Amino acid sequence: MSQILFENRLRALRSRFDSLGVDTVWIIQPENRRYISGFKAADGQLNESSGSVVINLDQALLLTDSRFTTQAQEEAVGFEVITYKKGSVGALSEVFDRLNTRKLGFEGGYLIWDLYEELKGKATQHSPPVELIPLCGLVEEMREFKAPEEVESLSRSAQVMGDVLAQVVDELRPGQIERDVAWRMEMLVREQGADGVAFTPIVASGPNSALPHAIPTGRLVEENEPIILDVGARVDGYCSDMTRTIFLGKPPSYFREIYQIVREAQVSALEYIRPGMKTNEIDAISRDMIKKAGFGDFFGHSLGHGIGLAPHERPAIGPLKPEVLKEEMVFTIEPGIYIPGRGGVRLEEMVILEKDGARVLTTNQNFYSF
Amino acid sequence: MSQILFENRLRALRSRFDSLGVDTVWIIQPENRRYISGFKAADGQLNESSGSVVINLDQALLLTDSRFTTQAQEEAVGFEVITYKKGSVGALSEVFDRLNTRKLGFEGGYLIWDLYEELKGKATQHSPPVELIPLCGLVEEMREFKAPEEVESLSRSAQVMGDVLAQVVDELRPGQIERDVAWRMEMLVREQGADGVAFTPIVASGPNSALPHAIPTGRLVEENEPIILDVGARVDGYCSDMTRTIFLGKPPSYFREIYQIVREAQVSALEYIRPGMKTNEIDAISRDMIKKAGFGDFFGHSLGHGIGLAPHERPAIGPLKPEVLKEEMVFTIEPGIYIPGRGGVRLEEMVILEKDGARVLTTNQNFYSF
Repeated sequence: MSQILFENRLRALRSRFDSLGVDTVWIIQPENRRYISGFKAADGQLNESSGSVVINLDQALLLTDSRFTTQAQEEAVGFEVITYKKGSVGALSEVFDRLNTRKLGFEGGYLIWDLYEELKGKATQHSPPVELIPLCGLVEEMREFKAPEEVESLSRSAQVMGDVLAQVVDELRPGQIERDVAWRMEMLVREQGADGVAFTPIVASGPNSALPHAIPTGRLVEENEPIILDVGARVDGYCSDMTRTIFLGKPPSYFREIYQIVREAQVSALEYIRPGMKTNEIDAISRDMIKKAGFGDFFGHSLGHGIGLAPHERPAIGPLKPEVLKEEMVFTIEPGIYIPGRGGVRLEEMVILEKDGARVLTTNQNFYSF
Repeated sequence: MSQILFENRLRALRSRFDSLGVDTVWIIQPENRRYISGFKAADGQLNESSGSVVINLDQALLLTDSRFTTQAQEEAVGFEVITYKKGSVGALSEVFDRLNTRKLGFEGGYLIWDLYEELKGKATQHSPPVELIPLCGLVEEMREFKAPEEVESLSRSAQVMGDVLAQVVDELRPGQIERDVAWRMEMLVREQGADGVAFTPIVASGPNSALPHAIPTGRLVEENEPIILDVGARVDGYCSDMTRTIFLGKPPSYFREIYQIVREAQVSALEYIRPGMKTNEIDAISRDMIKKAGFGDFFGHSLGHGIGLAPHERPAIGPLKPEVLKEEMVFTIEPGIYIPGRGGVRLEEMVILEKDGARVLTTNQNFYSF
């Protein structure tokens, strides 16, 4: 990503300070941290932070420990890297004076209770005291809108995944083990030069395909049953996500019926989306079609989700929490029908919303038309 | 893991209620959740919980959403599975009456601020109100002590990793790329039937070996330079962790010197450890030897860490926060010397503490004696 992109993000972030009532923000969530600073490190474990960024109107600091000093200096251009020895909250409180911090924005959706209490202690004892203000998804909202460079990475990620999926479908034979097929995709994604998979691939065959989030098992894939492949790659940190439902052998009528309903529900949503529509309206397009076809009870999840540095991010495309869809948002459209004990169909595309509608980023065209 | 193990854990957990001043505990941290219930699901993303367990003196509930109902019922034997639609905190507050909850223990080291605030709201509004009490590492402390079944899984995990490392060292040639060597290990670990790697493997050659937590790069491994391999597998959820420093070509005297110091510092610590000693005393054994040899400034990290369902867990074996080491604890001993710009040596073994001392679980004997 170019330096100008990070400058724009920093400017956009700072322009929100006034309305949020903060003079400094502290960002520790790994994707938010990367989005704002360019520092690519992940957190080793949930309780092992690789660092955080602290930003006021004219300074941008990156606090980290000695394991990451060099990496931070190389990646977080424009940030002053400060190396701490004894934990992020202590390091943060030591720059309150330097940054003239009075009102500190923190990530309520990420900061754990222990660290919040430690921070509250330091903030209260500080002279003058520092007020703590939750940011309520500030950076997450910024991340909804993808710049052209990000769309490029997302497209490459979708392309890699599409190619890998095509190859795996090509190789798919009865008797292969779900888990092996999933692992084969992981290997191919890496061999194509991606960072890796974006999430554990789903390979769900037969009755397992009726479980929307099935984990690959030791089950053998068979003929004459649906096989759901739900997979994603990560390129430059950006995730892809796509689902195809495959059939080896001769599809029975129940499968052809639900497949067609799901595909039509998907295509309709893809065709109707325009900037300015609400997430629940889009969800309703697909959901109503599935309902009218008599399968309303068998589509339990949301229609889609935003995707970017995280495989699941804003906006959520579902029946609840309406949000207006805007240009430059990237998200999935993935209706499904799941018949318990029998099997299911899910089809997932990844799109960017443009002025005239949704442009599909997924390249793979492994769809049946019966 | 056997059902009796989970019954013991539940009994041990409940026996702590009185001293903690709680009548119910809520556990959402994935490894803690798995440890107490047997429910193996990981969390898809940090903000996407797969479920939580709620336990009072006579009931054990597992709250999850429909994606995981079946898996939870199969894995969490003895737990009643309750499927929620709208989030964990709401589901939790709905069982307050049923569990007669007045004082609820929660994981302060895991619960995020947003959810804590939501929980506080529900707890305060509830009639009678529910008091919230942080658990301060309750389950993490239980996890320090490994039952024989756990030691078996940890041993298998160490065995797999030892075999894979031996093979990769065998194959290691000048001109191989760090990242490819790391990926080769990931593949071999999977091919050996492990769940996967426990963490991103470290392959750090030449000057990169002077960075204790180097991430594999595109650098070509060369002759006449140290190559640090720090790797771990996961078997039945249990992690291994081992480090070897390899040399292709003829080791120069500086390398032989620091290698010997590190190995002696490690062997001494391994020999001296007994139950009842403190973590900082063990750390001091290795650290003092390295200091006396004149390399005190080049060993910046702790001597070791506990390992189990998480690659890093209690006890921390370092100069700070003394803790008494006891039988059945499993941890690493990994001294190192890192010469900036030149190279480093780290050697890591994984041990279980028994009555007479440390028993090494790592099987690989790829050590030099110069």
